[in-house]
Amino acid sequence: MRRKGRDAERLTEPAAGNGVLSRRLFLEGAVLAGAAGPAVAAADPLPVERWMHEPGAAFVPYGQPSRFESKVARAIAPAPNPATPGIGAIRTPLQRLNGMITPNGLHFERSHSGAPDIDPDRHRLLIHGLVKRPLAFTLEALARYPMQSRITFLECAGNSGALYAKDAAPLDAQAIHGLLSCAEWTGVKLSTLLDEAGVDPSAKWVLAEGADAAGMSRSIPLAKCMDDAMVCLYQNGERVRPSNGYPLRLLLPGFEGNMNVKWLRRLKVTDAPVMTKDETSKYTVLLPDGKAWQFVFPMEVKSVITQPSPGLTLRGQWFYEIAGLAWSGRGRIRRVEVSADGGQSWAPAALQEPVLPQALTRFRAPWQWSGGPAVLQSRAVDETGMVQPARAAFVAERGLRGQYHYNAIASWRIDEQGEARNAFA
Amino acid sequence: MRRKGRDAERLTEPAAGNGVLSRRLFLEGAVLAGAAGPAVAAADPLPVERWMHEPGAAFVPYGQPSRFESKVARAIAPAPNPATPGIGAIRTPLQRLNGMITPNGLHFERSHSGAPDIDPDRHRLLIHGLVKRPLAFTLEALARYPMQSRITFLECAGNSGALYAKDAAPLDAQAIHGLLSCAEWTGVKLSTLLDEAGVDPSAKWVLAEGADAAGMSRSIPLAKCMDDAMVCLYQNGERVRPSNGYPLRLLLPGFEGNMNVKWLRRLKVTDAPVMTKDETSKYTVLLPDGKAWQFVFPMEVKSVITQPSPGLTLRGQWFYEIAGLAWSGRGRIRRVEVSADGGQSWAPAALQEPVLPQALTRFRAPWQWSGGPAVLQSRAVDETGMVQPARAAFVAERGLRGQYHYNAIASWRIDEQGEARNAFA
Repeated sequence: MRRKGRDAERLTEPAAGNGVLSRRLFLEGAVLAGAAGPAVAAADPLPVERWMHEPGAAFVPYGQPSRFESKVARAIAPAPNPATPGIGAIRTPLQRLNGMITPNGLHFERSHSGAPDIDPDRHRLLIHGLVKRPLAFTLEALARYPMQSRITFLECAGNSGALYAKDAAPLDAQAIHGLLSCAEWTGVKLSTLLDEAGVDPSAKWVLAEGADAAGMSRSIPLAKCMDDAMVCLYQNGERVRPSNGYPLRLLLPGFEGNMNVKWLRRLKVTDAPVMTKDETSKYTVLLPDGKAWQFVFPMEVKSVITQPSPGLTLRGQWFYEIAGLAWSGRGRIRRVEVSADGGQSWAPAALQEPVLPQALTRFRAPWQWSGGPAVLQSRAVDETGMVQPARAAFVAERGLRGQYHYNAIASWRIDEQGEARNAFA
Repeated sequence: MRRKGRDAERLTEPAAGNGVLSRRLFLEGAVLAGAAGPAVAAADPLPVERWMHEPGAAFVPYGQPSRFESKVARAIAPAPNPATPGIGAIRTPLQRLNGMITPNGLHFERSHSGAPDIDPDRHRLLIHGLVKRPLAFTLEALARYPMQSRITFLECAGNSGALYAKDAAPLDAQAIHGLLSCAEWTGVKLSTLLDEAGVDPSAKWVLAEGADAAGMSRSIPLAKCMDDAMVCLYQNGERVRPSNGYPLRLLLPGFEGNMNVKWLRRLKVTDAPVMTKDETSKYTVLLPDGKAWQFVFPMEVKSVITQPSPGLTLRGQWFYEIAGLAWSGRGRIRRVEVSADGGQSWAPAALQEPVLPQALTRFRAPWQWSGGPAVLQSRAVDETGMVQPARAAFVAERGLRGQYHYNAIASWRIDEQGEARNAFA
């Protein structure tokens, strides 16, 4: 390690056990010169490759990723029933991405009957029920209202459900945690549209229904609808894609993904929840005593290490960056700590600005791998003070049958060959 | 207009001439009830459309936009030479997007010899010249360094060059201003890599060279390279696309697009600029007296109204949102004002948070169209106090032969039919 600045001496001291270094290594510009790593070599001049001897590709109206990156794709697991190929979920390859934005082609999907082929000219959004006057909005009408944008994560309530298992399955970050994505969403505040219809004083809930064949429906507290809920027309700048709700979807920042109803066609203002199948038979959290939590809305504070993680082999003893994502349905991430010794010692990670409420926050910590075994963990704290629980404490309270809202600390065990695997540590 | 709250009376007063309303209309929740607009109707129940009667589409590994949005595409103008279809530029459809992020498939491109088909396993980044030890980095080596992310605009120095014409051509926002996009870029700080090589005290510049057949090259001040320059591997979360520099590109936040060298293969540390063709015969600003400005690096403070704009017809006298993008190569946007009367009066627009340095900032202002003629303009001010100039003042100083770095206030003229067209007002 090269040393720079007054405090350089301290930078080379570990910040936590098993090689975790201070995040100030990033801030103070200390680098790794003199041991530039196994894949750096002196080479001058470079060979002039084939692609510099021939004209490059022509322009295309809508661009696509490199043919060399075809493995960076969403994965379906478990395999869908061939008779109903649109029912299930497809997961974001978190371990192959970096930053906080998920590109639209890789945003996770959970669908109960496949993505409908909606003609936007025929689609309507109906607001009815306990309102002064029911209204049906065309897309053109919606597009004339004031818009707002926000960068927000969406997480399926069933994300990380594989960790409810008794034993740790050999799954990667995508398979375990990939029902999680983040995008810039743009649309109309739902409160604006409800004000147009005129909400009756007796109203307390709103039923949201999708225009898919499942008619996916959820009951939402009116307070959330009048607070920060949005009817979104755009995702990362362009129109929302069919798999994510084209031509419009509901966005309830921080609430479980299922409630952010896609292909939104109907909002019925009511005085009580409607008790749809997706809030009774599903999306309730089964407890050890046989009772269940219903209407668990915000996704809890959580984090996951994406690099290193299964499938990304460490090659040699050298510097590595421990990087991952943290988020909370209750607001901003305040702090993330990382451990390389299975939680015996922790060091704070650097948080990538901007840290936004209900958005994914990228964290990074420098790590010097000794070549020996390690157990990597991350622990997030949100601005309300909620701390991501240890697995043992989580399981003691919730048991293993909850299916939804798993947010305990996750572990990757690194072996001497540099391979990472899912572990319960 | 419905009135809410103590200050509601003032909300209905115009904030500037010809119907521009106060941005507080957004903040205070005042809405437009009672005149819900021409495309809103009572309709209960809704018809159950075809797509609710059939299973939806199956999952695909990499998603695509709706087939109904095929017109949301990049446009090539002027048409390229058939013999060299990769030479030219392709523009972002700004008027069909919203928010601040440009999806990767619609990011603008400027290419001097087409997008090369680079095998990442064979690609190297060479750092040589005035360094203690030349180094060649593989992609694998680069991926092991500490990363950072930032949301940054890129603008071609030639963007808005059509406004150097004597008369206003009938072009839309995409054709005039579409060499402008914004993405979250992730990569390694260039200073980290230069520190690895060990920069000689005599060094002052760095030559950056691309691996395209043009070997596109620019000279960059060493100070910028040691400040906030990045070698980027990821764009909006996924690997940079071929058209934007796969497998890696240089990012110089705020500097003219051409300098953010794509397909980066070589950085040569030098004591003086190299005077490549793209900083001598091109990318210099020709002045009225025949002299030229060379090495004009940061893109100046600027803004453009994207909605309404040519091709988006206003339908009836009602509320419209004036929305657009503002940016500055010198830092954050501090303020944007809009005018509906050709600059006779101005009102402040609302700025969408987060307002980030060297990023596109979405601004929005409410507007009540009278049905009469209007000239829409926006004027941005950045945090250094630089103000976007009026066209007359800009042309008086720069003349009409500059080609690059046009940043004067732009105008859309609205006629009684609600059509917008490019105008010099």
